[in-house]
Amino acid sequence: MGIGTVGGGTFAVLARNQEEITRRAGRPIHITVVADKDRARAEAVTGGKARLIEDALAIVGDPDVDVVVELIGGNTVARDLVLRAIGNGKHVVTANKALIATHGNEIFTRAREQGVMVAFEAAVAGGIPIIKALRESLAANRVQWLAGIINGTCNFILTEMRNHGREFAEALRDAQARGYAEADPTFDIEGIDAAHKLTILASIAFGIPLQFDKVHVEGITGVAREDVVNAEALGYRVKLLGIARRSEEGIELRVHPTLIPERRLIANVDGVMNAVLVRGDAVGPLLFYGAGAGAEPTASAVVADLVDVARALTADPQHRVPHLAFQPDAMSNVSILPMERVVTAYYLRITALDKPGVLADITRILADSGISIEAIRQREPAEGEQHLPIILLTQCVREQAVNDALAKIEALQSVKGKVTRLRLETLA
Amino acid sequence: MGIGTVGGGTFAVLARNQEEITRRAGRPIHITVVADKDRARAEAVTGGKARLIEDALAIVGDPDVDVVVELIGGNTVARDLVLRAIGNGKHVVTANKALIATHGNEIFTRAREQGVMVAFEAAVAGGIPIIKALRESLAANRVQWLAGIINGTCNFILTEMRNHGREFAEALRDAQARGYAEADPTFDIEGIDAAHKLTILASIAFGIPLQFDKVHVEGITGVAREDVVNAEALGYRVKLLGIARRSEEGIELRVHPTLIPERRLIANVDGVMNAVLVRGDAVGPLLFYGAGAGAEPTASAVVADLVDVARALTADPQHRVPHLAFQPDAMSNVSILPMERVVTAYYLRITALDKPGVLADITRILADSGISIEAIRQREPAEGEQHLPIILLTQCVREQAVNDALAKIEALQSVKGKVTRLRLETLA
Repeated sequence: MGIGTVGGGTFAVLARNQEEITRRAGRPIHITVVADKDRARAEAVTGGKARLIEDALAIVGDPDVDVVVELIGGNTVARDLVLRAIGNGKHVVTANKALIATHGNEIFTRAREQGVMVAFEAAVAGGIPIIKALRESLAANRVQWLAGIINGTCNFILTEMRNHGREFAEALRDAQARGYAEADPTFDIEGIDAAHKLTILASIAFGIPLQFDKVHVEGITGVAREDVVNAEALGYRVKLLGIARRSEEGIELRVHPTLIPERRLIANVDGVMNAVLVRGDAVGPLLFYGAGAGAEPTASAVVADLVDVARALTADPQHRVPHLAFQPDAMSNVSILPMERVVTAYYLRITALDKPGVLADITRILADSGISIEAIRQREPAEGEQHLPIILLTQCVREQAVNDALAKIEALQSVKGKVTRLRLETLA
Repeated sequence: MGIGTVGGGTFAVLARNQEEITRRAGRPIHITVVADKDRARAEAVTGGKARLIEDALAIVGDPDVDVVVELIGGNTVARDLVLRAIGNGKHVVTANKALIATHGNEIFTRAREQGVMVAFEAAVAGGIPIIKALRESLAANRVQWLAGIINGTCNFILTEMRNHGREFAEALRDAQARGYAEADPTFDIEGIDAAHKLTILASIAFGIPLQFDKVHVEGITGVAREDVVNAEALGYRVKLLGIARRSEEGIELRVHPTLIPERRLIANVDGVMNAVLVRGDAVGPLLFYGAGAGAEPTASAVVADLVDVARALTADPQHRVPHLAFQPDAMSNVSILPMERVVTAYYLRITALDKPGVLADITRILADSGISIEAIRQREPAEGEQHLPIILLTQCVREQAVNDALAKIEALQSVKGKVTRLRLETLA
C-alpha cells in the first residue's frame, strides 16, 4: 500500500535480488497487488509486473494476501488501513514512524489479540537494523541509555553549518534544493520526526509504552553558525540527538541540539547519515551507523521484516519476539522525567555589555544556583562593539537550576536578549 | 561447559539481569549445571548457585539439558563435545570462532540432520551483533563487501604505535601487560584469530561454505612505526582488516594490515574496540562498532543467542534462520580468488641509495608492470645517511603485478633489503 519513494525501492529490491532473497529465506516473496492512488506512478514503478489497484481497502480485505506492507505514511488513512488489516488477521510491515509512535500501543494490542505480527524496522533510522538489535541482540542487557542522530535533514544542515560556515537558513535552503528537506521542513527541523523515532527506540530499550507526548522536543532552528563555531573551538560538535536515559528518578526522553566531544565516533557522523549509540550494562557502548533514509536503504529494512514475517508465519505467536521487545504483561510503568528534572551539562551563549563587573554578576548568579563552570570563553571586542558574547560550559546540573539562573541573567541590565542554551553530553 | 572469562561473564549477566531477560524472553533461563575442570574457579564464579561437575561429557548426555553452552574454546575437546551434544539432540550456543571456522561445515550438517540450532553470535566481534545483522537484517541485500577490525589485540597495538610513537615490540609488551595479549600472542598478531572471524563473516555474507584454509593471512609483525607515521602524513591510518569482497572473478578473503583514509569512521576505531563495515547493494554502507572481547560484552552475545534459541525451541526447523544465513541447498560454490589475482592499491616503502637515477629506475619498473603511482614521498637525508626510504602509494592494480615489480626492484643494486608492502583500501 503506497508505492512512492520507499514503496518503489521495496519493489525494485525485491525484483532485483529475488534470487539472493530466496536463497536466504527459503521461499520466494511475491508482491501480489500494489495499491496507490497515483496510477501513473504505480505503473512507472512496477512496469506491469504487479496487479495495480487504486483503493488500498481492497488489499486489507483480500483473502489471498498474507502480509500487508504499509508505505503510505502519516497517521490517518494509514492507521485505518493497518487496523483493518490486523482485524482481518493479516501481518503488517510498515515504515511509518508517526503511526507507530502515536498509535502503536493500540495497534500492538489489536495485533496481539489477532495473533499477527507488526514489523517496523524501517520506521527508525532507515537501513540501520537498530530495532532488531535492541529487540533481540541486547536481550541480555539492562539498557542504560541511547543517543541517536536519527534525522538526516538536521544532520545535513548542521554538517553544512560546520563545514562551510553557513547560517541555518542558508543550509536549510541547500537541503531543500538537494531534496533532503521538504518544502515545509517543520517536521524535520523542529525535531518532531526525531521524537517519533526516539519514542519507538525508548519503548523497546526500556520496556515502556510508547509515549510520544512525553518527549521534550527542541529542533535546530535556534542553533546559530557562531554556536557551531564556538563548539568547534572548544572541541565539540553540535548534533541533533534523540536521547533516552534511565535514571533513578525516571526515564529521560529528549530531542535537542547537543554538544558532543569531537573524539566520539558519533560526533563524526556527517551529512544525511544516521547513527545510534546504545549503552547496555553488559555489552557497554555499541554504535550502529548507516543511511537513515532513501528508497533502497529503507527498502532493505522493509524486506528484512518481510523475510522475518515469512519465517515466523507458522510459529506459535507466544514464541515470537514481542512487538515492543518486552512481554506485554511485563511492561514497566516507570514515569518519564520532566525536562526540569533532567541532569545534564550546558553550553550557554550570553550577549552582554563589555564592561567590568558583568562577568562577575553572571558567575555569581550561576554559583548561587549551584551551577559549576567548566570553561569560559570570551573574545576581544571589535572596534565600536559594545556587546560581546560570553560562552560558558557548565558541569552537570539539574535543568531547573539553569532555567532559574537564566531568568535572572536575562533580567540583568547589562545582558542583551535571550541566552542561547544548548545541552552538552559526553556520551561516556 | 567452561566457566573461564566468558563463562563467568555469562553466569554473572544471567544472574544480575534475570528479571530484565525474563521480561523480554517471556521465560526464565536457568543454568542447570556447570562443567569445568577447575573446580575452585567454578565455585568462585558460581558461588554455590549452580550444580558443578568436572566432566563436560556428563552434560552433553544429560536428558534434562535443553541447550549446551560451549565456552571452552579451541577445536579438539570442544569439537567432540559439540558434536556429541548435537548427536543427543541438544541445541548449542558457542563463542568458539576457531571451532566454527574450521569445523563449522561438519557441525552444521550434523545439526541440520538432528534439527537443532547452533548459535554463534559471540564467535565474531564479541558483543557486536554482526552475525544477526548479516544473517537477518541484510536479507534483502546482495552483500558487496565487508571489512572489519575484528582483533582487539592488533588494534590496540596499532593504536599505541600511532598515538605514542611506539615500535611494534614495545606496544606488544604493553598489550601483554594489560592482559590484551596472551603470553604467546601468535594467534592474534599473526592474524589467525581475525582470519577465523573473517571466514565466518564471509560465509554468511555471501552464502559460501566456511573456507578458513583459503584466507590470505598476514599479521601486523611487519608493520614498523615509520609506516604508521608515513601513513598518517599521507592522511591514512593503518588497521588490521579482515576483508571479504565479491568480485567478478571470485571472492576475496584476506586479512592484512591496511591503510585506510583517516576520514572514514572505521579509521577512528581505536584501542581494543572492534568494528565491521558492510556494504549491501540496497542499504549501502553500514558500520557496527563495539567491544570485541571481554567477559560481559561476549556474554551479551551468548545470552542473546540463548534467548533466541529458547524462543525457537518449538519452531519447525524449516522455519528457523539457516545456520549460515543461506539455505543449505542454496550455497554458492563460487571460488575464492587467489591473492595474486586480487586488485587493490598499495603502500610501498623502498630503502634505496640517495643518488640520481635510483627513483627513475624504480618508477620505470613500476610503469613497465602497469602500476600507476598515486603519490611519492621522500625526505631529506640526515648527515651521512646513504640510504633513504622512498614511500609510494599506487593506484589499484593486480597483486601479481606488484609481486613481479617488487622482485625486480629488490634486485636493484641501489635498493637495500626487502620492500615493505601494505595494502590500501578506500572503503568507499
